[in-house]
Amino acid sequence: MSQPTYDADNVFAKILRGELPAHKLYEDEHTLALMDIMPRGDGHCLVIPKKPSRNILDVEATDLAAVMATTQTLAKAVTKAFSADGVTIQQFNEQAGGQVVFHLHVHVIPRFEEVKLRPHTGEMADQAVLAEQAEKIRAALAAL
Amino acid sequence: MSQPTYDADNVFAKILRGELPAHKLYEDEHTLALMDIMPRGDGHCLVIPKKPSRNILDVEATDLAAVMATTQTLAKAVTKAFSADGVTIQQFNEQAGGQVVFHLHVHVIPRFEEVKLRPHTGEMADQAVLAEQAEKIRAALAAL
Repeated sequence: MSQPTYDADNVFAKILRGELPAHKLYEDEHTLALMDIMPRGDGHCLVIPKKPSRNILDVEATDLAAVMATTQTLAKAVTKAFSADGVTIQQFNEQAGGQVVFHLHVHVIPRFEEVKLRPHTGEMADQAVLAEQAEKIRAALAAL
Repeated sequence: MSQPTYDADNVFAKILRGELPAHKLYEDEHTLALMDIMPRGDGHCLVIPKKPSRNILDVEATDLAAVMATTQTLAKAVTKAFSADGVTIQQFNEQAGGQVVFHLHVHVIPRFEEVKLRPHTGEMADQAVLAEQAEKIRAALAAL
């Protein structure tokens, strides 16, 4: 595998620049958390670093640590917000590793007994549903 | 979900205490990396904190940061060791979230074009094959 490069036109870069809308959940100096618009389960959200990095193979250690601190916070918040029975964390690197958008992102998916992950169909979720779930997660974050 | 508790008799706790063998790959003050004995792909390894924690919901932030630093190092090493096309990172929390062993662990799985993850059958891999893969990963780590 050749050294990965960063494409500044990916959707997360555009969201970070304010060129695309997002259901934002949490933001600090180094990270942003937002709803996944093609969720594999209710409350599926993402954590990204603000600094450009393609994936785990090129991200700076401090950015990865910051992303994981926010991931832990989000894992606790979605568990509370949706009374989840568990949480699945996924992070994909390069196309063969499952990566679709080439800006590092960590998936945080609330899980429920007997409920499988939905397949990644590429279909967008209803924006009103995402907005409602985002509101529940923001409320849970505020109450952590 | 009730507050998770830590069961000191889980297999990773036993490995950390030297009561069970493991194909160890890397070790530092806070973390240990080892081969997954029920691999979902060639070179599938795990990173665990040395300190007891059940999963992402109770791990201390500094331990999680250390685990992810080692995860990044392993991701680079397995990519090199197996000339992988990508890497999939997974971390499961509670049974509904996919967790089987209740000591925090991060899966690092080298991925290859057109090769799907093998199902989690619960069957153990050939120890000689794991030993050979571990040797390749240790060599790649030494050359990073």
